[in-house]
Amino acid sequence: MNNFTFQVTTDIRFGKDRLNELPEVLNTFGKNVLLVYGGGSIKKSGLYDQVMAQLQNNDNQVTELAGVEPNPRIETVAKGAELCRTEKIDVILAVGGGSVIDCSKVIAGAACSEEDPWTLVTKRSYQGPALPLVTVLTLAATGSEMNRGAVITNLTAKQKLGVHGPNFLPKVSFLDPTWTFSVNRYQTAAGSADIMSHLIENYFSTTENTDVQDGIAEGLLKAVITNLPIALDTPDDYDARANLMWASTLALNGLTGSGKAGAWSCHPMEHELSAFYDITHGIGLAILTPRWMLHVLNETTAPKLARFAREVFQVEEAVPEMAARMGIQKLYDFFLACGIPMTLPEVGIEDDRHFEEMAKQAVAFSSIATNAYVPLTESDVIAIYQEALTPSEYL
Amino acid sequence: MNNFTFQVTTDIRFGKDRLNELPEVLNTFGKNVLLVYGGGSIKKSGLYDQVMAQLQNNDNQVTELAGVEPNPRIETVAKGAELCRTEKIDVILAVGGGSVIDCSKVIAGAACSEEDPWTLVTKRSYQGPALPLVTVLTLAATGSEMNRGAVITNLTAKQKLGVHGPNFLPKVSFLDPTWTFSVNRYQTAAGSADIMSHLIENYFSTTENTDVQDGIAEGLLKAVITNLPIALDTPDDYDARANLMWASTLALNGLTGSGKAGAWSCHPMEHELSAFYDITHGIGLAILTPRWMLHVLNETTAPKLARFAREVFQVEEAVPEMAARMGIQKLYDFFLACGIPMTLPEVGIEDDRHFEEMAKQAVAFSSIATNAYVPLTESDVIAIYQEALTPSEYL
Repeated sequence: MNNFTFQVTTDIRFGKDRLNELPEVLNTFGKNVLLVYGGGSIKKSGLYDQVMAQLQNNDNQVTELAGVEPNPRIETVAKGAELCRTEKIDVILAVGGGSVIDCSKVIAGAACSEEDPWTLVTKRSYQGPALPLVTVLTLAATGSEMNRGAVITNLTAKQKLGVHGPNFLPKVSFLDPTWTFSVNRYQTAAGSADIMSHLIENYFSTTENTDVQDGIAEGLLKAVITNLPIALDTPDDYDARANLMWASTLALNGLTGSGKAGAWSCHPMEHELSAFYDITHGIGLAILTPRWMLHVLNETTAPKLARFAREVFQVEEAVPEMAARMGIQKLYDFFLACGIPMTLPEVGIEDDRHFEEMAKQAVAFSSIATNAYVPLTESDVIAIYQEALTPSEYL
Repeated sequence: MNNFTFQVTTDIRFGKDRLNELPEVLNTFGKNVLLVYGGGSIKKSGLYDQVMAQLQNNDNQVTELAGVEPNPRIETVAKGAELCRTEKIDVILAVGGGSVIDCSKVIAGAACSEEDPWTLVTKRSYQGPALPLVTVLTLAATGSEMNRGAVITNLTAKQKLGVHGPNFLPKVSFLDPTWTFSVNRYQTAAGSADIMSHLIENYFSTTENTDVQDGIAEGLLKAVITNLPIALDTPDDYDARANLMWASTLALNGLTGSGKAGAWSCHPMEHELSAFYDITHGIGLAILTPRWMLHVLNETTAPKLARFAREVFQVEEAVPEMAARMGIQKLYDFFLACGIPMTLPEVGIEDDRHFEEMAKQAVAFSSIATNAYVPLTESDVIAIYQEALTPSEYL
């Protein structure tokens, strides 16, 4: 196990009917609130009205930034940062999923920085101050509600980049599973695929003997595998939604990654799919992950892939390589059974015309070529994209 | 899943050679340090000298409180609180295991309170201010390094009671697995039994559908079961010690208990063993836990006990009650194989002369009779103690 520092101070308010705690929370920071949200689903679900009622009763001055994109764009960040300055915002309230929270994090930093917002993102690490951020989560997926990372897209530059900042960490996050009842099947499955990908990316690392981190990851993976089908069948099953929501938060708050080294593999490859084709992040990850696993399967990686198969999917096969293949197949079949389109053409990526450029960027904007679980060259990335053009049958 | 609030702000500095960060950490709070430690094992291991060297280079004013007992006594707490007042202590530095840290927590509170220290403990919850606490952990066991609880013994009153306080939470905890290399086999096994007990106590709860919490608990249990035998065979195996240390911290920081209701069962029963006979806490828990499991096994509890057997000990038996029994036996055998004395006479409790009084207190000082996983009356407690007088064979 490697050395690490772990401090995640976010105050999690989990469960039903916690919104009445919002005024007290906001009052610690001030009265001028920037309310950030997405495409309006919170208006349909009634959450917008509930939040506004709390803010009005609390005499908050509210500025709204609506329409944050599923892959949040740098133009929206710039607009939010400008609003913070002109409206003298005290605290940002993000109501939505990972996109809204990610966008709000970078707004919070950019509002306190002289730097151009896209320059700030391209530096990948922002050590400066940020406005305090409070979140109200509506989608179990990115884990952004309890970490220091954000991903922002620049469609002009065809770039989707992650940026971290110690002050991006939300101060308080409200997690009420009932607000995810209205998330449709497709987005519910995509969100869970995102959770599973975070766990899998951390699980396969060059650092050995990390049973604590790996045991937690296996436990969270099993919790998602048990509860996602229930949530798909019965969207208002509170406990299923609760398990997915809490799993999403814990999958990416440092618990499964601390003490382990190396770059993630599938996220850099997926970011190029989203940057070039604006597809749903979690779907891209579901498509790529089993192909990536098969691509990196070799004598050295077989034991860990077999452990994954055994612990997560109860595969009983003794020969590691065989067990690994069975686990990969089970992961693929699970995604398929949850209604996830498992080929690129099904999400509108019909051919390989951009694969070379995408692979170049995937390698350039990450360290997958040097310190991933199995280092990936541009040709590796192209091969994995190619595999994803057609359905797979591994066994 | 129940509603919960989760906020654990302790700054964990995990790994080798982190002590050079101690001065910077202490300087945030002040120069006057109360150094609290136990029976002197830190002098033998060289840790005392290393800490003192850091403090001297940093111009700290150091007051020492040595000799904290394995079951820390209220007299020691009172002495420490008095020292904090007379020496105008700014920060408490606890160097040791759970006893030293627990003792330091209540000292930190009592130093800021007008209340008699034992009165403070008997109220079970302390909402007042406390001096800041920094810990340097030397034993993987209680998890006290990242939570708000403490257990204090009053031998005169024959009472061992838990007390919680929001301000008992350590500000910073240094976790270097190398400091546990010198922990002997007995204490290593006892510490791991304590970790496992915390996980098991949270696992068996009246709240259903908590796959996230239960999956994490299963993962941590497996990490302990894998790594304890390695640490017993090879005391300086860094990774084995690291997994045990990090498991101990995560087993009791709220991760596996948040969102679940009900009283713990084995701890209140064990506290009476320690209060009456001053035995090692983890050993008492190892002795009681399988007997308790068997005592509460019935049609209702069998499925969860069978899940425990399946997920933690790979039991493949399909009939729940049978699987449950096999899991209980495997837990018992695991403790035995780790060198833990598995009967009360082996730890000096030869007969049942105090069982009635102990059972009365176990029920009086907890809520096991009303809201435990399976409510336990005084006769249940006596029966479990009786079972522990002789070796067990369950199957």
